[in-house]
Amino acid sequence: MNAIDIIAKKRDGKKLTAEEIDFLVYGYTSNQIPDYQMSAWLMAIYQQGMDAYETAYMTKSMLFSGERINLSRIPGPKIDKHSTGGVGDKVSIVLAPLMAAAGLRVPMISGRGLGHSGGTLDKLEAIPGFRTKLTADEFYEQVEQIGVAMIGQTDHLVPADKKIYALRDATATIGSIPLITSSIISKKLAEGIDGLVLDVKMGRGAFMKSYAEAVELAKSLIQTAALNKLAIRVLITNMDQPLGYAVGNWLETREAIMTLKGRGPADVMILTLALGANMLIMSGKATDPQKAMEALRKLIYSEKAYEKFAEMVVSQGGDISYLLDPGKYPMPKIKYQIRSSEEGYVSGLDALEIGRAVVKLGGGRNVIEDQIDFGAGIVLNKKIGDKVAKGDLLALLYTDRDRVLSEVIEQVKNAFAFSPEKVESPKLILKALAKM
Amino acid sequence: MNAIDIIAKKRDGKKLTAEEIDFLVYGYTSNQIPDYQMSAWLMAIYQQGMDAYETAYMTKSMLFSGERINLSRIPGPKIDKHSTGGVGDKVSIVLAPLMAAAGLRVPMISGRGLGHSGGTLDKLEAIPGFRTKLTADEFYEQVEQIGVAMIGQTDHLVPADKKIYALRDATATIGSIPLITSSIISKKLAEGIDGLVLDVKMGRGAFMKSYAEAVELAKSLIQTAALNKLAIRVLITNMDQPLGYAVGNWLETREAIMTLKGRGPADVMILTLALGANMLIMSGKATDPQKAMEALRKLIYSEKAYEKFAEMVVSQGGDISYLLDPGKYPMPKIKYQIRSSEEGYVSGLDALEIGRAVVKLGGGRNVIEDQIDFGAGIVLNKKIGDKVAKGDLLALLYTDRDRVLSEVIEQVKNAFAFSPEKVESPKLILKALAKM
Repeated sequence: MNAIDIIAKKRDGKKLTAEEIDFLVYGYTSNQIPDYQMSAWLMAIYQQGMDAYETAYMTKSMLFSGERINLSRIPGPKIDKHSTGGVGDKVSIVLAPLMAAAGLRVPMISGRGLGHSGGTLDKLEAIPGFRTKLTADEFYEQVEQIGVAMIGQTDHLVPADKKIYALRDATATIGSIPLITSSIISKKLAEGIDGLVLDVKMGRGAFMKSYAEAVELAKSLIQTAALNKLAIRVLITNMDQPLGYAVGNWLETREAIMTLKGRGPADVMILTLALGANMLIMSGKATDPQKAMEALRKLIYSEKAYEKFAEMVVSQGGDISYLLDPGKYPMPKIKYQIRSSEEGYVSGLDALEIGRAVVKLGGGRNVIEDQIDFGAGIVLNKKIGDKVAKGDLLALLYTDRDRVLSEVIEQVKNAFAFSPEKVESPKLILKALAKM
Repeated sequence: MNAIDIIAKKRDGKKLTAEEIDFLVYGYTSNQIPDYQMSAWLMAIYQQGMDAYETAYMTKSMLFSGERINLSRIPGPKIDKHSTGGVGDKVSIVLAPLMAAAGLRVPMISGRGLGHSGGTLDKLEAIPGFRTKLTADEFYEQVEQIGVAMIGQTDHLVPADKKIYALRDATATIGSIPLITSSIISKKLAEGIDGLVLDVKMGRGAFMKSYAEAVELAKSLIQTAALNKLAIRVLITNMDQPLGYAVGNWLETREAIMTLKGRGPADVMILTLALGANMLIMSGKATDPQKAMEALRKLIYSEKAYEKFAEMVVSQGGDISYLLDPGKYPMPKIKYQIRSSEEGYVSGLDALEIGRAVVKLGGGRNVIEDQIDFGAGIVLNKKIGDKVAKGDLLALLYTDRDRVLSEVIEQVKNAFAFSPEKVESPKLILKALAKM
């Protein structure tokens, strides 16, 4: 077996065996296959695709490149949620403690933001003192005792994914459905969970721009999870406009805290409850989605979910005083009000442009090495369907970067589209798919 | 401009500008673009193709990566011939001195063998003392004074091609028509020639397995040469069976010497005359192909071409005594006669398998670093269309490698196919294409 023959086979659109995929993934992770052969292979995969079996083999090869967390000694179902990435998506911060309050074990491993897309780890680290690096023992104990822990990927979990993802990022091979699938599922399998609820984002602010692509990714994720014996449920949700009103790390965490206290935006609340209901059903703790959502809503209004969150923050070293009094958070020096020069109904609010604007304000990364200004970001005041009069507040910008301000103001204004006719708020949850 | 965007553009099947192609080729040659980005781009080109303009831009970018020989002070048309590579193809060794004898200037830059495909440089170096490395001044002077010089590519000519070809070889991206085209034409433009006659091989022993592929490559070569203002004529010729009887470096040089003395195989002679007639017409020294071939045939039978070859060998340091007495050449210790266990007419003689068998006998290379045993190889005794009785000699093997013998005997036997019915010898020259 040699690398060139395997590259040529995929180049010609043929199916690869488990052994051939293993040969390249293992060889690459152990530095025996050079970057340039791997990137040619990844581009061949991008162009020719992989079927469900190949994608499942790839997932398994990647999983076996590192350690797998063993949570089997902790009683009860261990269920995680994952999103394919969007703008303003702070759902995990609400959902994880909520599900722990509902009796599930949630060992959540999250990622960082890159480009227009935010990351849960960055949002949590906006809380002064919060540690997203725990030892394996600390992680294990916290899941057992509190029911929830939220950490970053360790070097020992799926090292193949780290290496391959960095190469994909540099060779225009990120957007391949089998490669996205194997990256997500291998990391989730490594967590040692029993089930996964996936939020596949679709629209302007998501990797998948069209509904057809999102369905294709969802099906690929479901098949690959099934072939690797991981229970999975998938929601396809709209990411044409940002989720909630806040975009930017601390601003989003603050909005998540508000949601946990029962005072969050409707869309954040609805999506959290829908994903949570799927997790409850998957765990066997519920059968009816409506009743499951009602039960979860009660855990929010009773502040049980918020208390669980506070417990987790304390356990991971975060300064609880910022939860009790979010207003004391040190904010950037510039707070700029964008007011409308048009009137009508908001008919579009480009999530991609808002995400990019937040990066420029200092609230995101262009490359993984960039430093984040946690306080920087945007709080929207109008969303699709809202009526706007001239002079109305559209959005608030927070930044320390004077020099980008005029450019970002233009960008945010242009992200809004208006219509003289009444516009419906877009449907949030587009489709639910599941397979055991 | 950045590499990832250019890779993504080609990945999505879009056309690249001259500036974008320059950016990658120049960046790669100057070590600013890493191997892994270049190989992803090459695989995207393999999958999505390039049009005539892109291929011409790529050719120009590669040409400008190095020096260009200036032969303009030498009077008369400077014309070269190139073949896309095959098995038993010793035509250049006959043709170059023949055309010099006909009054052309032939500054020929040849390559080495790799895999089943032989290389003119190796065949010339089989002559003890023959130097294929000349200084620029030596090359120039020899073309001016003798009319012909045959050398290898220097480090200064098209360094981009050297680097890109090595990467293509390691990433299964050799067989891309725009990449083959830009590699060939850039090197020929760098020689400073006025015209080029190209032998595009097609069949089992060639890179192009089908007639359709060969025509596609021929058209790409013609368009790219035309866009770079190089006069070109192309013959598509059959490479299903080896050319001539000898395969292996010294064996082929010996057969070329026999051909120069008017006693070579008919197919080698016909192809040499046909290519030569095209070179004469291109140079303006002839208009009628039949008359041109007659004139060249006379230069062979009068031994004018052979004398020119001997002159070149002496000038490049080769030991002339091996031309005068080829029998004194030190041959390998094993000389094995393969005899037929079947009877009938030869209906197939797989050039690829014969080429591979010669590599195993020591007469070729699997990787560019391999050492060649110049004496090793195969002399066929039967070719397609020949009648064979049981016990007839099919081929002679020459090797010092006892351990591969039984395997190679099987391989050579299996390369022959027989039919009870009479079989026609296959047509050698399939198509001629030209453009000024």
